[in-house]
Amino acid sequence: MEVLVPFSTDRPKSRLSAVLTPDERTAFSRAMLRDVLDAIGEAGEEPRVLATGAVDADLPCPVTVDDRPLTDAVNAALDARLGEGDTVADRVAVVMADLALATPDALRELFAAGREAEVAIAPGRGGGTNAFVAGHPEFETDYHGTSYLDHRRIADGIGASVAVVDSHRLATDVDEPADLAEVLIHAEADDDGGDGDDGDDDDDDGDYDGDGGRAPRWLRDAGFALETTGGRVGVERE
Amino acid sequence: MEVLVPFSTDRPKSRLSAVLTPDERTAFSRAMLRDVLDAIGEAGEEPRVLATGAVDADLPCPVTVDDRPLTDAVNAALDARLGEGDTVADRVAVVMADLALATPDALRELFAAGREAEVAIAPGRGGGTNAFVAGHPEFETDYHGTSYLDHRRIADGIGASVAVVDSHRLATDVDEPADLAEVLIHAEADDDGGDGDDGDDDDDDGDYDGDGGRAPRWLRDAGFALETTGGRVGVERE
Repeated sequence: MEVLVPFSTDRPKSRLSAVLTPDERTAFSRAMLRDVLDAIGEAGEEPRVLATGAVDADLPCPVTVDDRPLTDAVNAALDARLGEGDTVADRVAVVMADLALATPDALRELFAAGREAEVAIAPGRGGGTNAFVAGHPEFETDYHGTSYLDHRRIADGIGASVAVVDSHRLATDVDEPADLAEVLIHAEADDDGGDGDDGDDDDDDGDYDGDGGRAPRWLRDAGFALETTGGRVGVERE
Repeated sequence: MEVLVPFSTDRPKSRLSAVLTPDERTAFSRAMLRDVLDAIGEAGEEPRVLATGAVDADLPCPVTVDDRPLTDAVNAALDARLGEGDTVADRVAVVMADLALATPDALRELFAAGREAEVAIAPGRGGGTNAFVAGHPEFETDYHGTSYLDHRRIADGIGASVAVVDSHRLATDVDEPADLAEVLIHAEADDDGGDGDDGDDDDDDGDYDGDGGRAPRWLRDAGFALETTGGRVGVERE
């Protein structure tokens, strides 16, 4: 199935401005994008970047440029593929480019849910829609506000069956400084306890392949490390 | 399998003090505890509260009182059940009392993983250990700091096989005001789109049973509602 990955080339990741410069935010957002594209490919599906402008990077997949806001661009892409007149696809998936924790296993679960139900949604922390699969011609998106709730209501309104994918990895979009800790924590866990160490050959523990992704490497190279302050773990920068 | 649910009766949920009085925090933490106990029971397992003091509430399960810090109390309980001398259990689970989003389905996945691996862990956001199942006599806990990483290292050190349970519901412990939004979002989604509406009889979408839990009802009764501010959705109080 084709998997669209929306990517903003215009001031990406502005909520990380307290800890990253504009150039750093561009570089880090590209590292996350590459990780997401790789994970989709490893899950056996075909990624396509849906970018707001030209992406100045060597990407392993096609890029469609659409400078409209996210909701409009995604709806146009859904309509072109699933719409009544010209149905060229049975299912289309949309996966956000900042899901730095996404693994092939987590994505496989999403894609499998989306083959069963007419709409499968992986909610993000804070009520966003971090990833979905749509197979109903009338489904459309509305990314403003609590889009997870809106998308469930839209699916309900058109009588589409819905599956909800319960995944911490897919629920974690990297928007704010606290989210950087999540990237480092799971990369460190995967580095420590990779596939070879858990006595489990079928790789069902959701691990990366042990050599880490581009995003955690980028953060480490930029001087970020985990720090424990009070309750939850955050990041500090050298 | 016996499922221990640690519960602090001493100043619970202090990080919610900006939005809740001490009495309210006590009441809300009990509502979450009851929801977690119900979900464990509905998942077919036997909950037992491991409390730091007498719980002034009518609970549907046994209570063990141990006033030691969390790590010590849990390790003593594990040792009494799985320890070399007196093995009385094959597996023991520990599920935190503030997992207000926990559903029977999410817990079933944890328990199933814990029957396959010697240690199954559901990491929390921020690197905590929100729930685990242990079946190795030498496994012990260390809840200080990034306990998810520590617990993986401890399991690795004793040669125990590890499974990681990737669940947003189990990753969401309710500690801070922003977490309250998560409780309201998923309760609203479940209320709107309960089991009957998704055309899916086998209940694999992770929904509650549609009538909501005690914790979201408590929050609504206390005047909390979702609000959209900037990116993520938060809560406001009337």
